[in-house]
Amino acid sequence: MSASHARSVRVRLAERSYAIELGVGSLGGLGEAVRARLGATRALILSVPPVGRRYGAAVTRSLRAAGFRVKRFEVPDGERSKNLRQAERLYGEMLEAGADRGSSVVIALGGGVVGDLGGFVAATLFRGLPVVQVPTSLLSMVDSSVGGKTGVNVAQGKNLVGAFHQPSLVWIDAATLRTLPPRQLRSGMAEVVKHAAIWDARLFSRLERQLEPLLALDPDVLVPILERNCRIKASVVSRDEREGGFRMLLNYGHTLGHAVESLKGYRGVLHGEAVSMGMVYAAALSERLGKAPEGTRERLEALLRRVGLPTKLPSFERRAYLRALSVDKKKRDSRIRFVALRGIGEAETVPLLPREILPAGALTRQC
Amino acid sequence: MSASHARSVRVRLAERSYAIELGVGSLGGLGEAVRARLGATRALILSVPPVGRRYGAAVTRSLRAAGFRVKRFEVPDGERSKNLRQAERLYGEMLEAGADRGSSVVIALGGGVVGDLGGFVAATLFRGLPVVQVPTSLLSMVDSSVGGKTGVNVAQGKNLVGAFHQPSLVWIDAATLRTLPPRQLRSGMAEVVKHAAIWDARLFSRLERQLEPLLALDPDVLVPILERNCRIKASVVSRDEREGGFRMLLNYGHTLGHAVESLKGYRGVLHGEAVSMGMVYAAALSERLGKAPEGTRERLEALLRRVGLPTKLPSFERRAYLRALSVDKKKRDSRIRFVALRGIGEAETVPLLPREILPAGALTRQC
Repeated sequence: MSASHARSVRVRLAERSYAIELGVGSLGGLGEAVRARLGATRALILSVPPVGRRYGAAVTRSLRAAGFRVKRFEVPDGERSKNLRQAERLYGEMLEAGADRGSSVVIALGGGVVGDLGGFVAATLFRGLPVVQVPTSLLSMVDSSVGGKTGVNVAQGKNLVGAFHQPSLVWIDAATLRTLPPRQLRSGMAEVVKHAAIWDARLFSRLERQLEPLLALDPDVLVPILERNCRIKASVVSRDEREGGFRMLLNYGHTLGHAVESLKGYRGVLHGEAVSMGMVYAAALSERLGKAPEGTRERLEALLRRVGLPTKLPSFERRAYLRALSVDKKKRDSRIRFVALRGIGEAETVPLLPREILPAGALTRQC
Repeated sequence: MSASHARSVRVRLAERSYAIELGVGSLGGLGEAVRARLGATRALILSVPPVGRRYGAAVTRSLRAAGFRVKRFEVPDGERSKNLRQAERLYGEMLEAGADRGSSVVIALGGGVVGDLGGFVAATLFRGLPVVQVPTSLLSMVDSSVGGKTGVNVAQGKNLVGAFHQPSLVWIDAATLRTLPPRQLRSGMAEVVKHAAIWDARLFSRLERQLEPLLALDPDVLVPILERNCRIKASVVSRDEREGGFRMLLNYGHTLGHAVESLKGYRGVLHGEAVSMGMVYAAALSERLGKAPEGTRERLEALLRRVGLPTKLPSFERRAYLRALSVDKKKRDSRIRFVALRGIGEAETVPLLPREILPAGALTRQC
């Protein structure tokens, strides 16, 4: 692992443009990188206990060495921390710690929960503080840390409340993946497979060929694949920052995936696992609708199984699924903009009613 | 009162530009105006009970006649409703009522509390729904409904959490002021006087000349003054949407004003009353700093007294004031960007430490 693995990807959004800086063992460079980009002098680090224990000291050291005053904040690990009560607690703690409008920057050090919640708190405290995303999970590296979507969950569903707030910098140290629990790593792979499935047939083939060294975190395989994923995400976000249409393709697998998470009360299923189930179902539906050629679902499911991800929707009643779909935020009036595959490497949105997404008997047949 | 009083002011913010439409007895035209500007089909009206009772039915009728499905929501009257718990309750109620991303618009019908809270809920539900501001208080007509500042209060202070979210339209029916409680009307006058004090010496003279017919809501005096205030606010906001510097001038009187509100726990003092005290103090400090000529404070105080507004800071301990100032969101690192007058009609920001804003003995002397 060396500096030769350093990569930089630009997210082009006019005056809100920023860099994704990729490296291996690069956490110590964070402080200087933040100082070079922002006028801030006070760093508010948000993390969860397991991440804070492993990387909090190194990140603090790096920021202090670059001249920042540093305070650390924590929320309990897990999706259930992504709520307004935790946000309110953080507002209070950050204000009491001296957070102010002109000189503070939020550092979101962790996975998707920390990135989404930290981003939301940064978006709303003083009507917007800069945020630096330091993703330490595969999911957040390739997906949630890039693009400015921040948010919290409410009783009615996931991410229904939030803000678009682009980070000032995304700092990825791929070495942090070595301490990620294997189940979390597999979960993050769902978004990697998703990018390939909707956008990049060559990446899909590469994943089929190099899956084992990728899961073993061989940097020669891992870093180029991370970079490719960041480029895909960056290019989609640059074309459609506020999800007017095109960016919706990134929701592939998420309509059913969110329904599964919601029906399970966000317990016992990881985001990527739910998305994996949702993607396989969506591929089957794409075939059924005549959008994707036969064999698409089979090839996608085979890769996800090799990753070690679940591919069958859990058996809740159809009625419960339909209800969960009807508060889905991608709904446009009564139809949902469902993302279908045209084949491996290409996707489109199709406006569908919930009952068209889940025809009678579809759950038993898995479409 | 007739259509001859109709006025239109443009807030120029590139793709976020919008109109302020002023009229007398114009509430019935709201539905068509919203339909002409937005693709939405579902209107979510937020108000407080006294405003809802008076104008809810007329607004609902107007929106229904223009083809909208309409749902109404309420929060208790008063500043203390502007918090995250009310926001969370509204998210839930709006989602249960079928709010969705593609077809919903929030209508904030009421004063500053409804505008700020409704604007914040609109800014964050589904990461941003369009909002139409229908201000029914003088304060919200000339100040808070224009400019996109939305927010809620937290234990540490007022408006510390929020978002910039420009409305799609501001619809002002000046006739609604006739049902505004007199104390609220006087409170709103503080912001009118503020605009004149920081920006427009001619408007200040006009207020001195025409105060009685203005307070009596004579439309021939009221409407041009409302229009002038909206133009001042619009031009400041167009020059500095996110309060990078210039827009801070609008905070004149607010540094001490917010401290007073916070020390009183937002009880027993209206926003404009607190701002009135803060403005007089700030004028005295401006003289003391050699920024404003002698007599500035006296002239400002005389006008505010004629309006019927309080002009002396309440007697909390200096220590308490200093603590309240130190979480003020306009603080830049340890200094506060204090707004001083250069004279009637002109202002500037001065970076000051809390103890320079409140030198020992200043509270007794009122500076």
